[in-house]
Amino acid sequence: MAVTARLVVAGTALDSADEAMTTLTTALAAAGTPVTARVAVEDDDVALEEALAAPSDLTIVLVGPGATAGDIVRRALADMTGARLMPSERMRAGLEEAARSRGRPLPRGIERLVLVPQGASVWTADGAEPGWLVDSQGRVWIVLTPGAGLARMIEQHLVPYARSRAAGRPALAVRTLRTAGVDLGEMETRLAEWLGSRGAGGDVEVTTLPASGEVWVRLRARGAIPSAAEETLAAVEAKVAERLGDDCFGRDGDTLERVVGRMLAQRGLMVSVAESCTGGLVGHRITSVPGSSAYFERGVMVYTNRAKQELLGVPEEVLRVHGAVSGQCAEAMVRGVCRLAGSACGLAVTGIAGPDGGTATKPVGTVWIGVVVNGQVAAHRFLFDGDRAAVKWQSAQAALDLLRRALLASR
Amino acid sequence: MAVTARLVVAGTALDSADEAMTTLTTALAAAGTPVTARVAVEDDDVALEEALAAPSDLTIVLVGPGATAGDIVRRALADMTGARLMPSERMRAGLEEAARSRGRPLPRGIERLVLVPQGASVWTADGAEPGWLVDSQGRVWIVLTPGAGLARMIEQHLVPYARSRAAGRPALAVRTLRTAGVDLGEMETRLAEWLGSRGAGGDVEVTTLPASGEVWVRLRARGAIPSAAEETLAAVEAKVAERLGDDCFGRDGDTLERVVGRMLAQRGLMVSVAESCTGGLVGHRITSVPGSSAYFERGVMVYTNRAKQELLGVPEEVLRVHGAVSGQCAEAMVRGVCRLAGSACGLAVTGIAGPDGGTATKPVGTVWIGVVVNGQVAAHRFLFDGDRAAVKWQSAQAALDLLRRALLASR
Repeated sequence: MAVTARLVVAGTALDSADEAMTTLTTALAAAGTPVTARVAVEDDDVALEEALAAPSDLTIVLVGPGATAGDIVRRALADMTGARLMPSERMRAGLEEAARSRGRPLPRGIERLVLVPQGASVWTADGAEPGWLVDSQGRVWIVLTPGAGLARMIEQHLVPYARSRAAGRPALAVRTLRTAGVDLGEMETRLAEWLGSRGAGGDVEVTTLPASGEVWVRLRARGAIPSAAEETLAAVEAKVAERLGDDCFGRDGDTLERVVGRMLAQRGLMVSVAESCTGGLVGHRITSVPGSSAYFERGVMVYTNRAKQELLGVPEEVLRVHGAVSGQCAEAMVRGVCRLAGSACGLAVTGIAGPDGGTATKPVGTVWIGVVVNGQVAAHRFLFDGDRAAVKWQSAQAALDLLRRALLASR
Repeated sequence: MAVTARLVVAGTALDSADEAMTTLTTALAAAGTPVTARVAVEDDDVALEEALAAPSDLTIVLVGPGATAGDIVRRALADMTGARLMPSERMRAGLEEAARSRGRPLPRGIERLVLVPQGASVWTADGAEPGWLVDSQGRVWIVLTPGAGLARMIEQHLVPYARSRAAGRPALAVRTLRTAGVDLGEMETRLAEWLGSRGAGGDVEVTTLPASGEVWVRLRARGAIPSAAEETLAAVEAKVAERLGDDCFGRDGDTLERVVGRMLAQRGLMVSVAESCTGGLVGHRITSVPGSSAYFERGVMVYTNRAKQELLGVPEEVLRVHGAVSGQCAEAMVRGVCRLAGSACGLAVTGIAGPDGGTATKPVGTVWIGVVVNGQVAAHRFLFDGDRAAVKWQSAQAALDLLRRALLASR
């Protein structure tokens, strides 16, 4: 059996654990331990105990700072491994240090928080909530807290531990090639010879995975040790990547906003955005990348015709003759925002996110995107499926991908 | 045992299934069937089979449109229930209708997609991918596809089915009271008498659950039938809600942007936003609410001092003397954007999202937020924990909550 991990999240609102789960998944994969399942339980004790007991050789448990879920986890792991719960001085010192470094009072219920199953190892790192590890009969559980210090716990403890544990053991190597601008059916046709258990990849399993506004091509290879799995994978990866060409924008944790940001930074170009139906999502994604102030200076959200005219100088005639959801308007918007910002690159998005506002000729999901790179202006029409959130997200994906392609073409 | 459900998501990039999972969780809870665990598997066959086999009386399986995960689910459920896989004419008709209604070709591998375990029920709805249900020895699995038609499948099939299945059986009622502006420790102190198994809630279990920039208060009550569980819960809910007062902004699926949006719409007020460190996130959240064009007209993302001066008229002296991350700047920004938009309400956010840019007096996480309601201007300073994404999210939460409180105060 290859070394893999399960991720269990408990005691935190599910929506707020996504970031931490993605961070953990990426770090563990790079340490030779792919995450094969993520389980999220809010506060149901039966469901949480089941999640901890499910078969897995490495289970990472992320427990929110509230008292309830933490108590269930401590007690369940003690019961399952036949150990007693004992107060740990290292846990106490770690909790005190974490509170002090953030200028916070000690958490409520500290006498319970310092309890760990006898024999557990305690991990501490500067300013991070302490973590602990239970190793029993070939199974390992590692309990961590989401939040500010999690990145340090991962870097200083989890990654070295996972790497040394995976060394010399059978491994599963996993790579994701991320594509944009191609739909799932087209991608399956293009990769037909690779897909399925008798595909051209031989020992490398190739599958396609739909994501919002992207298609992921997933490669999985097994090997007697991690480096052997990686070698097997690399040979096929190169061929698949060649077939994907420029439709492949990145690997694993690469996002469109990171890839586009790198291209802009390398070429010293600034980008500005004018958003109607996306309402700020494109700007939010661009500025989610650390260092984005090097290439993003300003943008506008222009929900009404008046705002498009006043802030971007979209001609009244364009709005009257073609409407706000038109190629002409998208082009006028993107020219306007480049002028306003003095930027060489620009993006504009105007469309109908729904659920209201659709017409027979411009149904919900109709979106026009304007793009400028070094004075070259173009506008593209899209028709997206789904609800308001899905249309907004796919519009932002398409906008970032159009900018990426225009930057590639202007090399 | 109360009726509860497990949610299994497979064959889709995990990040893109969040929306669908939240929709399903909310709909099932309202139908008397709380979701106690969510399991996400991308494409690992062993992990997926385990997720399907785990104990649960109702398992909802959401499978992405790619072929691989769907094949594993079909075969695993046939094996587990001892049924043969058979082509279904209803599945074929449903798949054809779904493709036709979206002007798409038939999906690849249709001969495999029409296979379901013998005896399965097939659900169809206009323009939605068909779903299917297997009922075997007291366990039920329902297989659905995420995407444009999922909402209709939930409304027309899943909710009526779950409701009729829960009727007359022991039930677990769950309610979430969502609070903002109060941290976890403070909330635990305030609710101390209710928390824990011997709390003042009697048969209603009260717990706190940290979320990003919110604290959730979770109430859980059991009853012999759904209405009994709801009654037990309602009595305690009213008392807890009274204790929370205005710090409680909503219940269950209510988000800050929905609550604020309702208040603005009811009072006919417009809001505009000026975002520095949040870079569009506040605007994105406001415009994520259907109908938000009734109260949102425009906003600006102003990452540099020049943009703050040119677009919002922030005085050069404010920037020189106090800096861009200051109460004076936040106030000047919010006044500027209200003037620009002609809106009665406004929000401005300026801060240091990190990882770079912090100083000794203004460390990473320092954020100033300006708010205007009907000409009343105020600015508030925050110091948030966490990485760039966490600081941006908490800043947006705080901004929306300040607007909510200012609207409450101006009633």
